[in-house]
Amino acid sequence: MASLKTRLEHAITPAALRSYLAEFLSTFFFVFAAVGSAMSSRKMSTPEAAITDPSSLVATAIATAFALSVAVYVAVNISGGHVNPAVTFAMAVGGHISIPMAIFYWISQMFGSVMACMVLKVLTVGQHVPVHGIPSEMTGFGASILEGVMTFALVYTVYAAGDPRRGAFGTIGPLVIGSIAGANVLASGPFTGGSMNPAYSFGSAVTGGSFRNQAVYWVGPLLGGAVAGIVYDNVVFPAQSPEDAVRGITDGIGV
Amino acid sequence: MASLKTRLEHAITPAALRSYLAEFLSTFFFVFAAVGSAMSSRKMSTPEAAITDPSSLVATAIATAFALSVAVYVAVNISGGHVNPAVTFAMAVGGHISIPMAIFYWISQMFGSVMACMVLKVLTVGQHVPVHGIPSEMTGFGASILEGVMTFALVYTVYAAGDPRRGAFGTIGPLVIGSIAGANVLASGPFTGGSMNPAYSFGSAVTGGSFRNQAVYWVGPLLGGAVAGIVYDNVVFPAQSPEDAVRGITDGIGV
Amino acid sequence: MASLKTRLEHAITPAALRSYLAEFLSTFFFVFAAVGSAMSSRKMSTPEAAITDPSSLVATAIATAFALSVAVYVAVNISGGHVNPAVTFAMAVGGHISIPMAIFYWISQMFGSVMACMVLKVLTVGQHVPVHGIPSEMTGFGASILEGVMTFALVYTVYAAGDPRRGAFGTIGPLVIGSIAGANVLASGPFTGGSMNPAYSFGSAVTGGSFRNQAVYWVGPLLGGAVAGIVYDNVVFPAQSPEDAVRGITDGIGV
Amino acid sequence: MASLKTRLEHAITPAALRSYLAEFLSTFFFVFAAVGSAMSSRKMSTPEAAITDPSSLVATAIATAFALSVAVYVAVNISGGHVNPAVTFAMAVGGHISIPMAIFYWISQMFGSVMACMVLKVLTVGQHVPVHGIPSEMTGFGASILEGVMTFALVYTVYAAGDPRRGAFGTIGPLVIGSIAGANVLASGPFTGGSMNPAYSFGSAVTGGSFRNQAVYWVGPLLGGAVAGIVYDNVVFPAQSPEDAVRGITDGIGV
Repeated sequence: MASLKTRLEHAITPAALRSYLAEFLSTFFFVFAAVGSAMSSRKMSTPEAAITDPSSLVATAIATAFALSVAVYVAVNISGGHVNPAVTFAMAVGGHISIPMAIFYWISQMFGSVMACMVLKVLTVGQHVPVHGIPSEMTGFGASILEGVMTFALVYTVYAAGDPRRGAFGTIGPLVIGSIAGANVLASGPFTGGSMNPAYSFGSAVTGGSFRNQAVYWVGPLLGGAVAGIVYDNVVFPAQSPEDAVRGITDGIGV
Repeated sequence: MASLKTRLEHAITPAALRSYLAEFLSTFFFVFAAVGSAMSSRKMSTPEAAITDPSSLVATAIATAFALSVAVYVAVNISGGHVNPAVTFAMAVGGHISIPMAIFYWISQMFGSVMACMVLKVLTVGQHVPVHGIPSEMTGFGASILEGVMTFALVYTVYAAGDPRRGAFGTIGPLVIGSIAGANVLASGPFTGGSMNPAYSFGSAVTGGSFRNQAVYWVGPLLGGAVAGIVYDNVVFPAQSPEDAVRGITDGIGV
Repeated sequence: MASLKTRLEHAITPAALRSYLAEFLSTFFFVFAAVGSAMSSRKMSTPEAAITDPSSLVATAIATAFALSVAVYVAVNISGGHVNPAVTFAMAVGGHISIPMAIFYWISQMFGSVMACMVLKVLTVGQHVPVHGIPSEMTGFGASILEGVMTFALVYTVYAAGDPRRGAFGTIGPLVIGSIAGANVLASGPFTGGSMNPAYSFGSAVTGGSFRNQAVYWVGPLLGGAVAGIVYDNVVFPAQSPEDAVRGITDGIGV
Repeated sequence: MASLKTRLEHAITPAALRSYLAEFLSTFFFVFAAVGSAMSSRKMSTPEAAITDPSSLVATAIATAFALSVAVYVAVNISGGHVNPAVTFAMAVGGHISIPMAIFYWISQMFGSVMACMVLKVLTVGQHVPVHGIPSEMTGFGASILEGVMTFALVYTVYAAGDPRRGAFGTIGPLVIGSIAGANVLASGPFTGGSMNPAYSFGSAVTGGSFRNQAVYWVGPLLGGAVAGIVYDNVVFPAQSPEDAVRGITDGIGV
């Protein structure tokens, strides 16, 4: 049991600072591609056509899958490749990362997302940055559950991919994590947009200038992710002996 | 040769119960993305446009490929990653899983599929859940054969991926299993919908409220899958010595 | 130097017969998905729309990439996973497979392709099976070169993937082989259709009832593939010592 | 510290000459698919429709992702799989490749790109080769920054994939490198075209006959790539001991 002081010191070591940079860069790469692909579809046709043409949903889903795979891949050996406050929250709830470090992870992820959206807005000379939203017939409560269910699947996949008992299957983990995100974007595009990531929704809200329904993209993903972590660690694939408990962190750097 | 009592006991060990949970979750993830992507296309444009625009078929095929890869990946070390009653049936026919366990696998898969469709229907406030069906010029017999041929390819791939003699190639097995399902959705979309999975068709039928042609999605896949398992085990790549017979199960958990 | 009699005997061992079955099944799986996806696009919209909508080209390209990856994957440990007479021809030219075996490979591949097209035609109740063709402004000579250039890229990738000096990279070989085929379908769709595979073009020609321009899909791929094999073996990455010459075959089963 | 003479001698060894051939072939394969896919979309519909339909952007993005993965894969054991003057420039800045070799890499890459575009133009009987360009509301300065940001992500991924401390994750490196390129094409298609590769833009400009905005595709990618290499080597994941400095080159062949 480390004291708070020790935990804070661990949160500002050179290795920890590198983790924050890695989370910043990976979230930037991911949000840049995901938001940029939605802006491209709107620019090519019209904002109205972009939300009635399945090919624009395919574009965003592929960009999401490809970019999240890359974002996880380039950060996995440095920060664990969370790229998502919901993943970090689940890791904190499960004790795989200290609270002080988790807070710095969140800040890095949110900053990366805001920067990606800002860069897109400025460089495309003021193109509108699309914000996650829900159709009129849905309630915020229902939308939260939908985002929560999808984030459950995402975080469950992150845990499975990071489990050392997977053996050689760990190698394709980053591809599989991107795949579940892309599949869920296809499943939920016209309903909630398929965020599964509070930092992603926060960045586009800040830049697009609308925080309407923002709570949907925090409550659902954080709860869904935390439940996934608890289920994986305790029910589906629990550590059966101390040597199995390999998810334990060294200096707070999880996965 | 285990007695029935022993087999039943093996079917309710903690490891077995975890397998059923893993099959439930993986089938839920897969059907959620596959059915959800079809609902998204219908929501974005119109039900009529969604079945005349190849980009909506591309959306469903990619969702199928990505989500099945993930579903197999996260369950492979726990339950073998069947995610499909046709795979479980083939494994039971080949003696790789006991009958009692296979029955619990089926129940878990069907329950996961029904729950995924129900969640989609409720959370999208009553959007129609599309049900697998066949065009008027086709007969149920012909559609069964088409589904059976495609399930043969899927189960053959599952067997190849799970064969320990593959060596390092096993690593990409889950991606390849998802790929054959996605390719076959593209090949058969406007003909039978490309189910290859009785649980998937059952869940959408229960929720969509139509069991018309349901037999097509059971007879074809179960027969096609069983034949694939028999061909793989006995003809294409038979075990050549007792040490080779590594598909043998431990406590009934196959692959 | 084996005598012709010895080579013929090697061509009918149980292991060799299993190779022919593996080539038949893999070519069937591949052609079924590639041709089926083109039929699906035509069925969903109209034959005219299917050739003016880029999303139908995307559908065929993804089906090609996914299905060829799978076809190579499931056969690679048995027959080497050629799935293509152009690959087998290059292997024969390079001495990696005996002439008698290569002939049986060709027969298995062509039979698999014809069967896949026949099954599609019968089960879809007589839908037209599309045949590879070229636009009016192109000559057969130019089309042959285009197919030859693309087959060069494909066979070069097959050689690179099968080279044991690749080490762990070999693991993703089947995915990469599918990827180059899919990319080239996107590059050449409205020009030559992107066959790169004489068996594929032969099967659709037999079933679709037109052998117009069939020579394009034999001359180009066979020459392009053979040149790729020669370049790879002798120039780009030659064996530098006898121990390096690991592509040498055991009982004629290459790669 | 090798003298200039020694470095020049190293630049013309058989191994070095094979590297140049590998870079030529890989750049040819990549540019052929990327440019060819854009030509296919224009040929299928109309040049105007091809730039207002998201499915044509999806086609180019998938061709880019698939073909770049393959191009890196087939060259990685021979030349390091740069396939891009921006990657080579970053490696030269970081001291991972000698200046004389880098120059030959550039020449090979540019020659491969020009040849691919020429072959496409001739074989398609004079179809227009599309040239990278920017919309009227953007400045060359802004476009350079956008290309620079995306090339930063690409080269950062190349460095991460080539880092031997990645362990088994290195295996999927070529797939991940292709994925980030494909994602960024989706993000930037209607803005700058998503080149991230001066050789690619140079080849299409030579063949398409327009060097308007060519500087955008050199300044941005070269600077963005060099900064990525410096950040990766010195900040994110620095070598911590001499034994860690494994990116050091043998005979100038990097990665």
